[in-house]
Amino acid sequence: MEYKNSRLSAILKIQYPLIQAPMSWITNADFVAAVSEAGGLGVLGPHAGYHTPPKDPQEILDRVRLEIRKVKSLTDKPFGLNLLLLKDDPLDDFTKAWLNIAFEEGVTHFVSVGNADNRVFNLIKEHDGIIIHRPLTASITNMREAESLGADVLVATGYDEGGMIPTRAIGTFTVVPTMVDAVDIPVMATGGINDRRGVKAAFALGAEGVYIGTRFIVTKENPASEITKKKIVESGCDDIEFVSPKQRSIRTQAADILGSLYLNKENTLDLDTEISRLGGVRPAMLEGKLDEGIISVNTGIDVIRSIPTVKELVIDLLGLNEE
Amino acid sequence: MEYKNSRLSAILKIQYPLIQAPMSWITNADFVAAVSEAGGLGVLGPHAGYHTPPKDPQEILDRVRLEIRKVKSLTDKPFGLNLLLLKDDPLDDFTKAWLNIAFEEGVTHFVSVGNADNRVFNLIKEHDGIIIHRPLTASITNMREAESLGADVLVATGYDEGGMIPTRAIGTFTVVPTMVDAVDIPVMATGGINDRRGVKAAFALGAEGVYIGTRFIVTKENPASEITKKKIVESGCDDIEFVSPKQRSIRTQAADILGSLYLNKENTLDLDTEISRLGGVRPAMLEGKLDEGIISVNTGIDVIRSIPTVKELVIDLLGLNEE
Repeated sequence: MEYKNSRLSAILKIQYPLIQAPMSWITNADFVAAVSEAGGLGVLGPHAGYHTPPKDPQEILDRVRLEIRKVKSLTDKPFGLNLLLLKDDPLDDFTKAWLNIAFEEGVTHFVSVGNADNRVFNLIKEHDGIIIHRPLTASITNMREAESLGADVLVATGYDEGGMIPTRAIGTFTVVPTMVDAVDIPVMATGGINDRRGVKAAFALGAEGVYIGTRFIVTKENPASEITKKKIVESGCDDIEFVSPKQRSIRTQAADILGSLYLNKENTLDLDTEISRLGGVRPAMLEGKLDEGIISVNTGIDVIRSIPTVKELVIDLLGLNEE
Repeated sequence: MEYKNSRLSAILKIQYPLIQAPMSWITNADFVAAVSEAGGLGVLGPHAGYHTPPKDPQEILDRVRLEIRKVKSLTDKPFGLNLLLLKDDPLDDFTKAWLNIAFEEGVTHFVSVGNADNRVFNLIKEHDGIIIHRPLTASITNMREAESLGADVLVATGYDEGGMIPTRAIGTFTVVPTMVDAVDIPVMATGGINDRRGVKAAFALGAEGVYIGTRFIVTKENPASEITKKKIVESGCDDIEFVSPKQRSIRTQAADILGSLYLNKENTLDLDTEISRLGGVRPAMLEGKLDEGIISVNTGIDVIRSIPTVKELVIDLLGLNEE
């Protein structure tokens, strides 16, 4: 099996080179612990475990500390914390406080998304942290920069993905080998990995690991609404539409309105901001209010046809039942 | 090796399940014969073998007959003829004449691109022809329709491809397994297959064969200008830009102008028509006039770093040297 004794498993200190993508509201302690217990790396998203918008930044910090503690009560295995590096000052007071909580609680794995930052990376390294870095849009330049700044592992994101789509339309199939050749540290593939075929293909393309979002939403332990999970299982690529330059959704009433605005050249709304204002993925995906929000998924959901447990899914994705 | 004794090789009556994408002006008899001699299926494009625009449709027909005869003088192996099914009446007088020449000259393999058509398919079947069909944009609906109308093999095109990009942004990584699951006949993958890793990944995703364009341009026998081949070898994904909603190009003077128009919301030109008016891929790709036209390539050209012979490339792509 291609994932055995891999250098990525050694770096990440986990059984299998498989990371569950942090998905903002669509993670919680039970789910993350289940992924780590299954041999992958579970990762808490920024709003993990909660259903209501926070009153203020302090509430976000209080929540994440409690959620980290809950994961620790459920598993002794490593798990990760998402770190958004999208601001002008990536090491502002909020991020310092966020990292401090992580260090105090003994979190070792950091999944940073956005722009690699010298000061943030150094701070994590001073605390013996492991950095898995994912630029929103992978380029040879920003992958090499993240490597030079001390990232341990990089994630190459293809245009097939769910979430915030890369600004350059390079699919998973071509971005992975390009980025693998560009750097020396391990590169993980993400963007449309939904079954065993996708995992095998990612490794064939030179990836040393897989980073999976959408497929993990459709598991028993994921906090997404049952209505949403069922909707994904019943939908296919014919049901997906662009709702902004950077986001796709399964057709919902809200998605159709946004989709029309996206196609209308005269529209002047910033649609990504509008989606945030509506609550992002929270109303439809977490609460099951399908007509009030978007259901962000990758373009390969036709092959998602069941709602297994996390453990069953990991076994299936890695072909552990094939041996 | 995954390609041995495959049902696709049996259907196509060729050694390896590998088709060279017809590329309009960028094919000729020598090149097509070299691909077929190497064990794949070479395919003549509509303007194969010529450097000047035709005076009239009759000249296109005269030219293709001569080019077919030239391929037959160079190889006894099967080769294919491209068939464009993009018109309102797919079986108009020109297409009837085109097919008639093919039948008279004993062509057996037809690579149809566009909308599957009952009358065209029936005519080919009456002449014991083999139909490899590629919708410009693969959907479950049009793949199943082509299957029901008698296609022998289907090609699933990913958004990573060179040429006319699918109108739906579904990458090769996700479109292939979706279409494999949608039909019973063999599906080939296309869109960004540039090296052995891409071939392996295509098979991992469930494809039974590979359909390769861009990588074949950069071979000794391909009629593209040496200047163009060198340009592709020296370029990477950072040098590619959209020049219309449906086409990408490596940066050239012409591509930059088109690219600006594409990004300008107020532009009212039909950019794809404008690219045709400029001569499509002929000025830059065939004639090496890099500043006069576009260089259409897939998004994975970073891994193209050499100009081998067709035979060397086929051996490399299929890993025949690994045994």
